[in-house]
Amino acid sequence: MPRPGREGGRRGRTAGSTTEAPAQAFITRKIPPYEILSDADLQIIEYNADTILEEIGIDIKDDPDAIATFVAAGASADGERVRFPRGMCREIIQKSAPSMFTQHARNPARNVVIGGNNTVLVPAYGSPFVYSREGGRRYASIEDFRNFVKLAYMCEGLHHSGGTLCEPMDLPVNKRHYDMLYSHIKYSDKPFMGSVTAPERAQDSVDMAKIVFGHDFVEENCVLVNLINANSPMTFDSTMLGALKVYARHNQAAMVSPFVVAGAMSPVTSAAVAAQSLAEGLCGMTLAQLTRPGAPVIYGNFVSSMSMQSGAPTFGSPEASMVINVGAALARRLGVPFRSAGGFTASKVPDAQAAYEAANTLQQGLIAGVNFMLHTAGWLEGGLAMGYEKFVMDADQANMLAVYANGVDMSENGQALDALREVGPGQHFLGCAHTQANFKSAFYRSKIADNNSYEEWLEDGALTAEVRAEKLYKSMLATYQPPELDPEIDERLISFMTAKKTSFPDSNVA
Amino acid sequence: MPRPGREGGRRGRTAGSTTEAPAQAFITRKIPPYEILSDADLQIIEYNADTILEEIGIDIKDDPDAIATFVAAGASADGERVRFPRGMCREIIQKSAPSMFTQHARNPARNVVIGGNNTVLVPAYGSPFVYSREGGRRYASIEDFRNFVKLAYMCEGLHHSGGTLCEPMDLPVNKRHYDMLYSHIKYSDKPFMGSVTAPERAQDSVDMAKIVFGHDFVEENCVLVNLINANSPMTFDSTMLGALKVYARHNQAAMVSPFVVAGAMSPVTSAAVAAQSLAEGLCGMTLAQLTRPGAPVIYGNFVSSMSMQSGAPTFGSPEASMVINVGAALARRLGVPFRSAGGFTASKVPDAQAAYEAANTLQQGLIAGVNFMLHTAGWLEGGLAMGYEKFVMDADQANMLAVYANGVDMSENGQALDALREVGPGQHFLGCAHTQANFKSAFYRSKIADNNSYEEWLEDGALTAEVRAEKLYKSMLATYQPPELDPEIDERLISFMTAKKTSFPDSNVA
Repeated sequence: MPRPGREGGRRGRTAGSTTEAPAQAFITRKIPPYEILSDADLQIIEYNADTILEEIGIDIKDDPDAIATFVAAGASADGERVRFPRGMCREIIQKSAPSMFTQHARNPARNVVIGGNNTVLVPAYGSPFVYSREGGRRYASIEDFRNFVKLAYMCEGLHHSGGTLCEPMDLPVNKRHYDMLYSHIKYSDKPFMGSVTAPERAQDSVDMAKIVFGHDFVEENCVLVNLINANSPMTFDSTMLGALKVYARHNQAAMVSPFVVAGAMSPVTSAAVAAQSLAEGLCGMTLAQLTRPGAPVIYGNFVSSMSMQSGAPTFGSPEASMVINVGAALARRLGVPFRSAGGFTASKVPDAQAAYEAANTLQQGLIAGVNFMLHTAGWLEGGLAMGYEKFVMDADQANMLAVYANGVDMSENGQALDALREVGPGQHFLGCAHTQANFKSAFYRSKIADNNSYEEWLEDGALTAEVRAEKLYKSMLATYQPPELDPEIDERLISFMTAKKTSFPDSNVA
Repeated sequence: MPRPGREGGRRGRTAGSTTEAPAQAFITRKIPPYEILSDADLQIIEYNADTILEEIGIDIKDDPDAIATFVAAGASADGERVRFPRGMCREIIQKSAPSMFTQHARNPARNVVIGGNNTVLVPAYGSPFVYSREGGRRYASIEDFRNFVKLAYMCEGLHHSGGTLCEPMDLPVNKRHYDMLYSHIKYSDKPFMGSVTAPERAQDSVDMAKIVFGHDFVEENCVLVNLINANSPMTFDSTMLGALKVYARHNQAAMVSPFVVAGAMSPVTSAAVAAQSLAEGLCGMTLAQLTRPGAPVIYGNFVSSMSMQSGAPTFGSPEASMVINVGAALARRLGVPFRSAGGFTASKVPDAQAAYEAANTLQQGLIAGVNFMLHTAGWLEGGLAMGYEKFVMDADQANMLAVYANGVDMSENGQALDALREVGPGQHFLGCAHTQANFKSAFYRSKIADNNSYEEWLEDGALTAEVRAEKLYKSMLATYQPPELDPEIDERLISFMTAKKTSFPDSNVA
């Protein structure tokens, strides 16, 4: 048998070990995407999405401007119900939406490339509560928000500072976006997300980004990724579309993510969820392209199934895994980056349920080829709580995803035939040259897992993973060092916020 | 755009919903295997395995008969070091080993097909301790063993009764296999595994199986799958090979599984682990084919990486996932079924660490296309403890694997276009005909996950998954009903054991 060529194979190869602990701004997957559906099946789902767009239509609520834009591009409107000729949305998106783009961070070493073989891992988003062993479950505050910015900054497996890490419930609803944005900029130098809760808050986000990056830079580059949810089924409202248009106008990314609890906001079957979600995504991304051709967009799905017992959303389920997998394949076929989740769970505490569900979702997200993995770390209670312990546990898993994504090292060093020759049958490899040379970088080392003997573990206090995670996040916060921020920029941000905050009254109406 | 054909695609389709809770004797995967390495890379690993066999060789300890068998087939021996010409082992295996075979259960409805697109989920194996919330960690007893047979029997997601579910430490080492085998037969009607700790115990296993299935049936059919570990690196001993030969002679399956803690029993790099493990597997499976051509074999790998801190094995790591993935691909190329794990963890308790690690391994096993997933349920503490709560938690995950393996239902019902038409934008799907028709079978329903609201969860006692799992396994054991067993067979089994047990003295030397 001839020796097969060493240079073949579909993945890039490096001379050194590829199993080092991750220290990169984002993941570039050397493993192929896993696809559970054939092209023929994916085509059926695309066809059904177009049937939804053409025949059933999408309701565009309270946004005559968006309706007019769609109609000018070839859609028809019947009141707020907009219908799109088959193929129209796909054509518009494929004509101008980038398949890959860079989101810039204020520290260029933290820039992330979104799309293609890249995966960006992003903290959880949007919870009104926080959970910790120490404090139990309580309303989140701006102090919590800052803490999670700091933790995300310190977790090398997380590539992004995220957006609404938790809702600072101690600040007025209509002004809290200022402090959230400022915290992202001040306490981290990773990329972050803008506000989407009102068009004017989207504009504030762009304006604050311009203080950091400069006006012209923002107009030509993506510095904000922004979460635009559809009101599934088949509905968009003027709040979300208003924010989308602001961001698109300024060349900032709209991540159009239908939010579906299957059984309530969609049929219960996965093929239907996938088609509906795609139809909604196509509609939103089309508006971004019509607003500014070439504005970056991300197709997202957020899918949960529904508990028979309580009607509550469930997570980490096999049905959700399938929809993530199919969504990623549909995005690749469309030619846009894909967003999905994440460390999902319905558990109230960081117990075994939380971990099984999170791991199931994280694993599926990685192999499906998700480009922007929102909710990677911290998610508890179906997104109602951000967990301190869960955050660092999930971040530990994030590190492992990066190692797995690097694939098998097929270099000479990885093949290690000389080590096998040197040691031989019946001996151990602990002291051989290859082991000595590779040991430090050979295996991912978790800071949370306990691999000691039972007796050592007892001696260490018989701690659960939750308690070890508590120690870890506390020690991280205690040793946090902020990245440098140009004092002039800092001052201008503070002046901007102060002027804005005093220009209109506080309100807690969302 | 023409409507794409509905009949296309690579997977079988069924008219009804495919997301029902599993109630099948084994899983037939409708999803494709996920392969992280290219054919060119897999060829390199195969080439390296042959280099190990040809150049380095395998030590065959204390078994001149096995050495003679190898030499007669073309190998060369230098003392106990046996070297195999390149390609010899592969050729012998491919000539006669079945790519798929049925393991018969005493209840034919429980027969499992091992190989191809099938996955059989099997409880954990071999721990001297058990762990439960109630009793903590303690030595296992035959009572524990019976309990795990009963639990495995009652878990529909587990397809097999397994082997040494835990070591009954209250029975003498040289006789405990009788009670283990009897318990599998008496308290379950699922397929089970034979003893491998000595050739005469393998023979006892065959003899007891013949009481159940009949002499001729056993000689022509597989009723026992048996775990043959290599003493990695590159060594087999006479105990394991002796058992292997007994089983092969009687047409029973040898699952040849190198047991590798990378860094100790192999180099630290995944490509080397894969090549060494394949070389060892090829050697063992070759002996089975030379002993009886056509005897069923399974190629297995058991891979763990090593903790830098303690030297202890670690589980659920990205490195182990890669080796599982590669092993499954190598087995497919060889044309034999593949065994791997399972609900692995190094955690001492069923906490978040246990669940993350187990989920990572289970997910990878399924998508890699493992045919016989040993250690699916119960594994704790690197295999030193069998956990009661962990067992039912993992079994819950096993149910989910079956749902995911069924893939996306692409039937008309799964596509649900009529439901989308009926409900339309902005409405909910809770009451529509499609939801009503599919709701019960639409989503997998976990018996352990809590998806209730925080308030309901508090009211229910704020229980962790571990406590809910404790309730579940206790209620299962309390309601266990044994399957029928022909009283004559029962009597003959007891007579056989009694006669055997009194024919030689007890010993606790392994």
